[in-house]
Amino acid sequence: MRYYYSYTEYLSDCRELTAQINDKFDAIVAIARGGITLAHMLGEHYDIREVYTINTIGYNDTEKLDRVEVFNIPDLKQAKNILVVDDIVDSGDTMKLVLQLLSEHYPQCCFRSAALFYKTTAVIKPDWYVRHPEEWIDFFWSVDMGSK
Amino acid sequence: MRYYYSYTEYLSDCRELTAQINDKFDAIVAIARGGITLAHMLGEHYDIREVYTINTIGYNDTEKLDRVEVFNIPDLKQAKNILVVDDIVDSGDTMKLVLQLLSEHYPQCCFRSAALFYKTTAVIKPDWYVRHPEEWIDFFWSVDMGSK
Repeated sequence: MRYYYSYTEYLSDCRELTAQINDKFDAIVAIARGGITLAHMLGEHYDIREVYTINTIGYNDTEKLDRVEVFNIPDLKQAKNILVVDDIVDSGDTMKLVLQLLSEHYPQCCFRSAALFYKTTAVIKPDWYVRHPEEWIDFFWSVDMGSK
Repeated sequence: MRYYYSYTEYLSDCRELTAQINDKFDAIVAIARGGITLAHMLGEHYDIREVYTINTIGYNDTEKLDRVEVFNIPDLKQAKNILVVDDIVDSGDTMKLVLQLLSEHYPQCCFRSAALFYKTTAVIKPDWYVRHPEEWIDFFWSVDMGSK
């Protein structure tokens, strides 16, 4: 079972997400690749120039992520309140590890998290999210070009 | 005069851009913010995990950019062939400066550039582009949330 998540639905969910978010941020960190498009749109909405990526590779055994490697930790020395975004918090392993690493690197910063989708079985709950996924999500940025 | 650039047109232009691009890359650098959504989509299309941002602030006097400040230069020590992308090469000042800085930092890397829009009066021509802008472009990621 796969669910096609269109740009139209995404736009509606972005509006819902920003209606919820009640903090101010001076930087946005996208968990790459999934969170990149969302980070861009939120950066435009809040007019935040400091939109960065943090990159992850998940090594998976069948369907569950076994190990996540994180690289390209952004320079956040000038930032204080940072929003970390991803498309989906599924197992939660990636978001949890990214928040841990960022907090270790920048103990003076306050990190909050947002995602479009959040699975209640995840090991971490994002501060803001819009939907619970019920099946595999085919995000428009992954499938619309027709390469998959 | 403003031209609304929709997701549908963007998707069509992404297909055109990838039909042109005849090199392989091991990293994509988005000039933030404008190039971020495009970098994400190209990263998905080519299955490149190494999607980074490089951030710029343009200080403008009336309409022409006078000075561009670049920050958050990504770590490209592991990369060789890098695609630098932006939404639009207008004056070309930003793309030119970013390519110069990246080449100075990583002389062992080969940098190519791509954009959706390219103005022929720009100081630099991207290796690949799709359209010439005829008026101010309102990109969907900037205007669809209705905050501007």
